[in-house]
Amino acid sequence: MIKAGIIGATGYAGNEIVRLLLGHKDVEIEWLVSKSFEGRNFADIYRNFFEILDMDCLGSDLENLIDRVDVIFTATPQGYLSSVLKEEMLEKAVFIDLSADYRIKDVEIYEKWYGIKHASPELIKRAVYGLCEVNRDDIRNTRLLANPGCFTTCSILTAYPLIKEQLIDPDTLIINALSGVSGAGRGAKVQNLFSEVNESAKAYGVTTHRHTPEIEEQLSYAYGGSVTVNFTPHLIPMNRGILVTETASLRQGADEGSIRAAYEKHFGREFFIRLLKDGFNPETRFVEGSNFTDIGFKVDRRTNRVVLMGALDNLVKGAAGQAVQNMNIIFGFDETEGLKALPMVP
Amino acid sequence: MIKAGIIGATGYAGNEIVRLLLGHKDVEIEWLVSKSFEGRNFADIYRNFFEILDMDCLGSDLENLIDRVDVIFTATPQGYLSSVLKEEMLEKAVFIDLSADYRIKDVEIYEKWYGIKHASPELIKRAVYGLCEVNRDDIRNTRLLANPGCFTTCSILTAYPLIKEQLIDPDTLIINALSGVSGAGRGAKVQNLFSEVNESAKAYGVTTHRHTPEIEEQLSYAYGGSVTVNFTPHLIPMNRGILVTETASLRQGADEGSIRAAYEKHFGREFFIRLLKDGFNPETRFVEGSNFTDIGFKVDRRTNRVVLMGALDNLVKGAAGQAVQNMNIIFGFDETEGLKALPMVP
Amino acid sequence: MIKAGIIGATGYAGNEIVRLLLGHKDVEIEWLVSKSFEGRNFADIYRNFFEILDMDCLGSDLENLIDRVDVIFTATPQGYLSSVLKEEMLEKAVFIDLSADYRIKDVEIYEKWYGIKHASPELIKRAVYGLCEVNRDDIRNTRLLANPGCFTTCSILTAYPLIKEQLIDPDTLIINALSGVSGAGRGAKVQNLFSEVNESAKAYGVTTHRHTPEIEEQLSYAYGGSVTVNFTPHLIPMNRGILVTETASLRQGADEGSIRAAYEKHFGREFFIRLLKDGFNPETRFVEGSNFTDIGFKVDRRTNRVVLMGALDNLVKGAAGQAVQNMNIIFGFDETEGLKALPMVP
Amino acid sequence: MIKAGIIGATGYAGNEIVRLLLGHKDVEIEWLVSKSFEGRNFADIYRNFFEILDMDCLGSDLENLIDRVDVIFTATPQGYLSSVLKEEMLEKAVFIDLSADYRIKDVEIYEKWYGIKHASPELIKRAVYGLCEVNRDDIRNTRLLANPGCFTTCSILTAYPLIKEQLIDPDTLIINALSGVSGAGRGAKVQNLFSEVNESAKAYGVTTHRHTPEIEEQLSYAYGGSVTVNFTPHLIPMNRGILVTETASLRQGADEGSIRAAYEKHFGREFFIRLLKDGFNPETRFVEGSNFTDIGFKVDRRTNRVVLMGALDNLVKGAAGQAVQNMNIIFGFDETEGLKALPMVP
Repeated sequence: MIKAGIIGATGYAGNEIVRLLLGHKDVEIEWLVSKSFEGRNFADIYRNFFEILDMDCLGSDLENLIDRVDVIFTATPQGYLSSVLKEEMLEKAVFIDLSADYRIKDVEIYEKWYGIKHASPELIKRAVYGLCEVNRDDIRNTRLLANPGCFTTCSILTAYPLIKEQLIDPDTLIINALSGVSGAGRGAKVQNLFSEVNESAKAYGVTTHRHTPEIEEQLSYAYGGSVTVNFTPHLIPMNRGILVTETASLRQGADEGSIRAAYEKHFGREFFIRLLKDGFNPETRFVEGSNFTDIGFKVDRRTNRVVLMGALDNLVKGAAGQAVQNMNIIFGFDETEGLKALPMVP
Repeated sequence: MIKAGIIGATGYAGNEIVRLLLGHKDVEIEWLVSKSFEGRNFADIYRNFFEILDMDCLGSDLENLIDRVDVIFTATPQGYLSSVLKEEMLEKAVFIDLSADYRIKDVEIYEKWYGIKHASPELIKRAVYGLCEVNRDDIRNTRLLANPGCFTTCSILTAYPLIKEQLIDPDTLIINALSGVSGAGRGAKVQNLFSEVNESAKAYGVTTHRHTPEIEEQLSYAYGGSVTVNFTPHLIPMNRGILVTETASLRQGADEGSIRAAYEKHFGREFFIRLLKDGFNPETRFVEGSNFTDIGFKVDRRTNRVVLMGALDNLVKGAAGQAVQNMNIIFGFDETEGLKALPMVP
Repeated sequence: MIKAGIIGATGYAGNEIVRLLLGHKDVEIEWLVSKSFEGRNFADIYRNFFEILDMDCLGSDLENLIDRVDVIFTATPQGYLSSVLKEEMLEKAVFIDLSADYRIKDVEIYEKWYGIKHASPELIKRAVYGLCEVNRDDIRNTRLLANPGCFTTCSILTAYPLIKEQLIDPDTLIINALSGVSGAGRGAKVQNLFSEVNESAKAYGVTTHRHTPEIEEQLSYAYGGSVTVNFTPHLIPMNRGILVTETASLRQGADEGSIRAAYEKHFGREFFIRLLKDGFNPETRFVEGSNFTDIGFKVDRRTNRVVLMGALDNLVKGAAGQAVQNMNIIFGFDETEGLKALPMVP
Repeated sequence: MIKAGIIGATGYAGNEIVRLLLGHKDVEIEWLVSKSFEGRNFADIYRNFFEILDMDCLGSDLENLIDRVDVIFTATPQGYLSSVLKEEMLEKAVFIDLSADYRIKDVEIYEKWYGIKHASPELIKRAVYGLCEVNRDDIRNTRLLANPGCFTTCSILTAYPLIKEQLIDPDTLIINALSGVSGAGRGAKVQNLFSEVNESAKAYGVTTHRHTPEIEEQLSYAYGGSVTVNFTPHLIPMNRGILVTETASLRQGADEGSIRAAYEKHFGREFFIRLLKDGFNPETRFVEGSNFTDIGFKVDRRTNRVVLMGALDNLVKGAAGQAVQNMNIIFGFDETEGLKALPMVP
């Protein structure tokens, strides 16, 4: 049994980590930190946990809190962890960071896309990018885990085997993504009010969304060369879910068989990735509440392109679930522990 | 380990029983029956179960299927079970019926409100009304369990302690209820199309909804006399959830203290009923996906009435979850087994 | 052609006044005031008006702005108009106030329910309560119009003829109401975020909602005596719409015929009130975007009660539409001018 | 004043034609035909029209009905009009067909993508494709108007000027589209039930959607050569709205200035097309209920591509509104007559 602390517990991702850890047999929640709700009982905010969890939110006194736990989840704004983390802290606890602070290896790219100065660039090399199904071996040995973004996880997993196996031309890769509104967080912003979002759809962050360099970096590793993509996210009126639709030109010889074989080779034994049968497209409702990523594809002989589709729950595999999966890998637990909940329909 | 069969598995309630039983350590699903999808793989319909459950839907051959199981769940239209059930079948398997066939003791009332002839009235006396927190002792010993309706469970639990303790005048009880659309089932009806339901609200079944006599019968038992209520259900644009708001005149001497004491007396030790703290109202999102019923109340001294509020997930505590809870009671399992999932927010 | 100014133009009600006035043949919008968006082009906020209306939002310089217009709409928070209005201003322009400042005649009741000191109680007697179909004659001659609230309009219109004609016992009147989220305004509040509201329902303001005394005052006038009600509003996941469900005990002799006759007597010639045919219940979608109020009822002989139901669009008949209707009455325009848009389904 | 008949009046598009024509000063609705609701009062189905329109739905007796009208709208399934239309009927009335029957000039392509035999291929040459802003001159003189599809209108208008002016490479054009659920019609299908669609998103018709050849044909005319595209539609949980996101590689020399100039050249004087200012993306809510198409774009120098975005209301500009606009052109009415309603937010 290990002990966990969560910083940023009252955001949607933080709350989801709480939910998952409460169902995890090897972990005990030791403390919760929330800047906005310091001193308030967590179950007064998230009343789903009424009579389940009786714990007050603490302020961010990391120096003292760190000694009480084995793992710390930071579900915090960009720049928080990089501004407080010191190398010696990594001796005391494993850090699993849901922000982007340590996801991108090239600090200049980080600073350019995020518009903030990185406060601890020397620690970036200590971090491992926690895309479990791709980087499992490196994850096992890290003390600083950079948990991938929701769009990123879905976009990369959906394209990875085809890029890796050279079945598509990465220069032609176009990624369109749809997101539920919880991905925008729990901050009080007019643009995320019900009546602003409901009965509407829009693209946003067009050509400038911060998940773009993260996608490009990881796909470049897979490709063994530089990959540049158009990534266009859209906001649609639902609580949870990411759906990506990617198109790319097929390389010579690529067809249904080789594409399926590539997926099978890389993900065929992965519990949390489900390669759908021919003729089925992913739908976000079929992964909602679970840590699954569903992937499907369709070859278009008319245009010599393939259309790839992926779906996941942005708060689970796209955030808290993958964070717990990473923790399981790092601490040697069963990788599915705490993550066995099945998708709930409708 | 017992074996279970589910008839009507491809409806929303049937599918939810599947989901819950897949997480139940003492039960194995032996077969699934679906008239609409006979011969189809269940996970082709409910793709949330892809790679989780590989089972074809069977036709309704109850005579042969019964020998393979210990318990049968019927999530079927009104009149199905009563037309096929024979007394000797109760020796072979426990029946947990999610329809209304055996909920009402007075067959004339059943036939009047449902407009169908009851095909096996002699079996009604064998049935126990499965409102777990009220009828637990009787449930333990039955082989024919009439699982309560969703509106009914929420309406009764919210009012029961106050009726029982004579704190409100039952003649003044007015029940308004809101329901998510999954309560209307998965039948292809124009009135339940997305574009007919979304961005709208309506009352329906006004003065004639079939859950009315079920509510009245159970509250009459609690009261020790005849209770007649106005029950007005409304359809609102969400997938899951029942919210009831009940008003009633306070009896002499009834106040916050005695009301809270009544709830504590009857439900204070119930895991699945959460009496909210003063000042908190139930919200359906805080029970979604769980077997909880949340209850709150507010006394109005201006009008000498009390406003009672209850919330549950219509597919869990309002259908499949209570069915599993009843199964747990009947078979002597831990009552929360398979039902430990916490509500998921958002 | 008259000229209009709108204060609070960038709230949902203010924006709706803009929309309606742009389609009004006798009115020209002269200026828009918005504290939050001073200096910003209105069509940059409400891009529905891009290329339709090119007007910058002004700051609240009422002393100077008043000379440019014939009518001023204030879609502002409680307390704004009462703190700036002076009697001589009423000589210069007609004020149509969408806040509650001048709705309640008894200033003590206002101050108790709203928790603020009224800054100009001496002007209350100048105000007319603008429920068009009830107070039309008084409205014609006022310079200070207190536009009714959304819940209030729907609740009163639905019950008014039956109270007036003594067909129901007002002491037994229970009002439950459902509201779309736009009724909560465009302020950046966590509780109105999409992911907090979607897939959920809750009661709020139970026994304390500020529309209660407004309903009671008007129904008391109708009754000719004091009426006290339980009013319980609920928030449900849709943009627009109010649905009320009211129950009350029937007086001796009241029946379907006399109830329908009462509605016909009071509202039979009203264009904006539609008394539905027997067997039809109001649905908010059938009034969305229009100034209609739909009303239906059902007598319950079992309980000797009647269930009344009313539906309207909270931003039209519940706010901006009724405000324009009041303006039409005051200025002698065709009462339906600018309000002829039909409900849009789906 | 002309007289109009509507066949398929009780579908969503048919109903929307009714709504628009009721606000059109030069047109009177003479009859409504509905196979599903023959003999029923139209306002019993679409109760938004209660007390507004009192007209019973007729059966499809075209031979007799045609003599009573000047224009017939057919909002009917594929294959209906082509199976009943005879050349001489075009002398009696103008036909505006909202199905795909006469949209595609090459009957083989029609039969291949739609999987049905065309019953009157000889009439295809009589038809004009009614994309108003592109084909206005031809539309003026036709008696058989093929009204474009919703995805098609949005996809073509968004790309047309750039294809026409050779600013993008048509071989690289990728179209992703999001649709509200009303686009799927009012048929009773499980897949369009609220609880199947809400809280989910999916791609469908991937590589095979029937609007693909329609888009390709029109863009090929613009290009002066064959254009083949990947068109991927998605279903998202909202009632109305189409949003398209298109990416394409820029031709040498194309930049923000030339792109904007191309849009201005072709659509700068079009009332119903709004080219958004730099930095604004289309959102479906800002066109809802109106006949507008909003278009925006963003150049990506990193990838040398442009991202084009378009939004319209699928039932107005994507169906009934464009049909009325086409009628206005054919009969010489003001092109905006009946279509002046502004978008309604929220």
